[in-house]
Amino acid sequence: MRLSDEDFVPHYALGLDYGTNSCRALIIDLADGREIAEHTFDYPGGTLGVLLDPSDPHVARQDPRDYLAGLEAVITGAIAAARTSRPGFTPADIIGIGVDTTGSTVLPVDRDGTPLALLPEFTDDLAAHTWLWKDHTAHAEAAAITEAARVQRPHYLAKCGGIYSSEWFWAKIWHCRNTAPGVFAAAHSWVELCDWLPAVLTGETRPEKLRRSVCAAGHKAMFNASWGGLPDQEFLGSLDPALADLRDRLYDEAWPSDVRAGGLSEEWARKTGLRPDTTVAVGAFDAHMGAVGAGVGEGRLVKILGTSTCDIMVSPVGRALEDIPGVCGIVEGSVKSGHYGIEAGQSAVGDIFLWFVHNLAPDRYGTTPTERYAALEREAAKLAPGESGLLALDWNNGNRTILVDQRLSGLLVGQTLYTQPHEIYRALIEATAFGALRIIERIEKYGVPVHEVINCGGLAEKNGLLMQLYADITGRPMKVARSSQTCALGAALFGAVAAGESRGGYANVEAAQNAACGLREKVYEPDAAAHAVYRELYALYATLHDAFGTREGATNLHHVMKDLLSLRERARRAT
Amino acid sequence: MRLSDEDFVPHYALGLDYGTNSCRALIIDLADGREIAEHTFDYPGGTLGVLLDPSDPHVARQDPRDYLAGLEAVITGAIAAARTSRPGFTPADIIGIGVDTTGSTVLPVDRDGTPLALLPEFTDDLAAHTWLWKDHTAHAEAAAITEAARVQRPHYLAKCGGIYSSEWFWAKIWHCRNTAPGVFAAAHSWVELCDWLPAVLTGETRPEKLRRSVCAAGHKAMFNASWGGLPDQEFLGSLDPALADLRDRLYDEAWPSDVRAGGLSEEWARKTGLRPDTTVAVGAFDAHMGAVGAGVGEGRLVKILGTSTCDIMVSPVGRALEDIPGVCGIVEGSVKSGHYGIEAGQSAVGDIFLWFVHNLAPDRYGTTPTERYAALEREAAKLAPGESGLLALDWNNGNRTILVDQRLSGLLVGQTLYTQPHEIYRALIEATAFGALRIIERIEKYGVPVHEVINCGGLAEKNGLLMQLYADITGRPMKVARSSQTCALGAALFGAVAAGESRGGYANVEAAQNAACGLREKVYEPDAAAHAVYRELYALYATLHDAFGTREGATNLHHVMKDLLSLRERARRAT
Repeated sequence: MRLSDEDFVPHYALGLDYGTNSCRALIIDLADGREIAEHTFDYPGGTLGVLLDPSDPHVARQDPRDYLAGLEAVITGAIAAARTSRPGFTPADIIGIGVDTTGSTVLPVDRDGTPLALLPEFTDDLAAHTWLWKDHTAHAEAAAITEAARVQRPHYLAKCGGIYSSEWFWAKIWHCRNTAPGVFAAAHSWVELCDWLPAVLTGETRPEKLRRSVCAAGHKAMFNASWGGLPDQEFLGSLDPALADLRDRLYDEAWPSDVRAGGLSEEWARKTGLRPDTTVAVGAFDAHMGAVGAGVGEGRLVKILGTSTCDIMVSPVGRALEDIPGVCGIVEGSVKSGHYGIEAGQSAVGDIFLWFVHNLAPDRYGTTPTERYAALEREAAKLAPGESGLLALDWNNGNRTILVDQRLSGLLVGQTLYTQPHEIYRALIEATAFGALRIIERIEKYGVPVHEVINCGGLAEKNGLLMQLYADITGRPMKVARSSQTCALGAALFGAVAAGESRGGYANVEAAQNAACGLREKVYEPDAAAHAVYRELYALYATLHDAFGTREGATNLHHVMKDLLSLRERARRAT
Repeated sequence: MRLSDEDFVPHYALGLDYGTNSCRALIIDLADGREIAEHTFDYPGGTLGVLLDPSDPHVARQDPRDYLAGLEAVITGAIAAARTSRPGFTPADIIGIGVDTTGSTVLPVDRDGTPLALLPEFTDDLAAHTWLWKDHTAHAEAAAITEAARVQRPHYLAKCGGIYSSEWFWAKIWHCRNTAPGVFAAAHSWVELCDWLPAVLTGETRPEKLRRSVCAAGHKAMFNASWGGLPDQEFLGSLDPALADLRDRLYDEAWPSDVRAGGLSEEWARKTGLRPDTTVAVGAFDAHMGAVGAGVGEGRLVKILGTSTCDIMVSPVGRALEDIPGVCGIVEGSVKSGHYGIEAGQSAVGDIFLWFVHNLAPDRYGTTPTERYAALEREAAKLAPGESGLLALDWNNGNRTILVDQRLSGLLVGQTLYTQPHEIYRALIEATAFGALRIIERIEKYGVPVHEVINCGGLAEKNGLLMQLYADITGRPMKVARSSQTCALGAALFGAVAAGESRGGYANVEAAQNAACGLREKVYEPDAAAHAVYRELYALYATLHDAFGTREGATNLHHVMKDLLSLRERARRAT
């Protein structure tokens, strides 16, 4: 390779990461992946950025105004920070921008791509706002889609784990049609947040023109090239003719994130100081870009541990890959071009601990949540495996993989009159680890070996007890990605790949990972004695998992959690 | 009836009630049952009077010194209070003393009836102290007794619900023999606390001489006149030859509490100011005397609601009565002469709430337990049946009736990320109500109709939400006994019956109840709409009850709680 002047000019990329409660920007130096500046913005709306409905715990919406306010704030904030940390830095040296967001997080938009929530007539209508990933109002529609596909189009289901989720694109849109027909009628189209934000940056937000992410399309909207893109008219029409109509106003093509969505608009160049026409990559979901930032590759599972978790694997397109029942999705190019992206995950991990610490840990563990977390972890770490006598199911927010059922709930068994909060806290961590093991076993069973587990996200960095328990329970070393911002790092890397090697970016995702990704020194090694005990506890977990979560086997308690939810809904309707 | 001078002399009786954490004395006026004075004494030893072993949560012992200190304190305290409340009162007008205690609460004693714990060489030996009712260390021995009786003497088991409990006489003694052979060898005999205290008052504590309670003997020691008293030598010898030897040093006869145990000794008359030779009635268990104080009778179930509960019924000896599987005991004369006493109960009720309020209710519900109870009750009362989506099993301390299994544990299902402490609190109350309903259904199924339910104990008086939920869940009105001290009242009534009509007492228990017992005005009536929802929740409770609590049916999860306990024990042994 010949060196050119270009090689000696510092090059940077900008990653934008839109989470559940906040968004952030990260600027990296492409020479070594060093993170030179970042800026975070907490969404001001609702409760920690989420619009809730006190009468229905399934509702979780967001205000698009928060995204726009955050977009400007984090880009200008990160640039200002970079000027301080790196003298001589100029935003003109940023060659590419990548964007990741939560998903399926969908916005109803008008003909121009303007979110309905921004129009005066819909300002107060929750249904016109963004339907956040964790909105579970559409469970009935999800069940109906699953049922229809099971009968009519089983190959659709096979790619999304066998069950269509209430968290996903079509279920949410259909639920809007069923419960807020005025909003549905006013929506010219529906856009994933990860598609809308790059569109905003490029200035081309018209639904038919903006470039849709294959990651979002494939994992959430049943888009697949092998059956001609989105689900066909006939199938959608069998659900509701209005969905078949909508299909015409959606898209036929979807793109991986190593591709340009467009160039930065003059307007956003002005607002931010970035160069006009700076490459904006096609967006993708946080977990997928986070997995790239953490170093995902063949045989290398990335676990993104946050309020919920995503488990991401890839498998080369050339190798035969079965459909994996109960795994959220298998989509070509959703993580890396030339690979199937495999996504699994747990609906709640950190959220369960958050719930416990905020609601059930008394003040003797500390007066702030931070103090309580620390004290619970310290006390829980003193326990031996099995010593609490407790066992929990990690389903307080349903089960995303491998049961794909939002209508499951938490369970705790083994309490005595002496059970202590830190014992329960440990049992909850263990439950999430058992859930994690179940996912690894499922993926391996279907021919995708897991040689290495790399963790990232806040829990991986901060909760040493959790990491050790994951090692002890899975019987595998737990490694931790070097970056604290793997999602934003991954987004920046995609920005640099989409910009291309000729502009000082990277030739492809592998090259980007080689340059910019790494692991921390600390590896959590499994303890053999602990693992032996946990094999026994895991067998009990599996018994309860199957009894309450499936209709299979002799011990069928599958109806119990459903019946409780039905009774709850009736009670809520009555009051 | 001719009136004599005697009729115009005020007559009183003294009831002594020995609970888990304290003892009390109550003085009543026999004319109308009015409670004129009382005095309470908290046992100073251990944790709230209970000696614990940090390494084994099953251990619960007591120090006999606390009983003796309390005996003098409460009698003299109540007499002093009576002198104030009733000018002219003199202790010489107390014609009878009754005693009730917890049970099976057993003491190893020497040849003189002195508890081994009072001897210098055993002062520090927990096994030489009193084995409190809720000591569950003997679960293995209880299981072995059950198994042996199932094969050799099924009629023994039929009278105690089909399963011998770890809380009972022989299991505890055998466990002492197995784990503390030195104590066992030093024990000339073993005495129930309810037999030992009257013996102390009469001055005749020699094990062969003191009068044993048929209530304790029949319910806990498998004593039955129909098979010649205690279990036979051969059976006991098959368990352990040492138990067969012990049988010779126990008793052949047992007595109801309307009979004199003896007269007050000179020593105790001196200590207290009572008349020497004042009638001391044969003792009995708190629940049985409490049931009499609450007005138990044919068709009238008394529920004594405390840390645990006892459900007491009677059925006339003349009427055919089947054995009732899973009901703790059926013993002739244990409650009233001429009736079978039927005892059932729940191993933990108030104790479950106590555990929750002390460990899992955060400070936003109040900084003291009293404040937290009040706030939890207030918030929980606002919920509709089924609204929490939660369901619990009330087995944090095992299940006394109808599963008779200490090796069961608590369970909570239905938690989400939004579940609040007061929702769990309500689910725990509901769980105990479901357990209560299961007992009523079992008793009725075997031919003993329950026409009326009378509640007594602290929870019945103080927890209006609990009483209303019991009414809504059982579909029956919940009445509350007038007295706050039904156990001590019942004990006093037995003192007066044992003294006899000729000395100013009562002719029999019915006459005593007619004179002294009553109900409060407030009756909790069931709400039909709530009851309808609770029938559905109860069906789910029954499903979990049978799945986790029995080996019957297709949904057999019976092993889960046992396996967790085994793992816990292994972990504790290892650390």
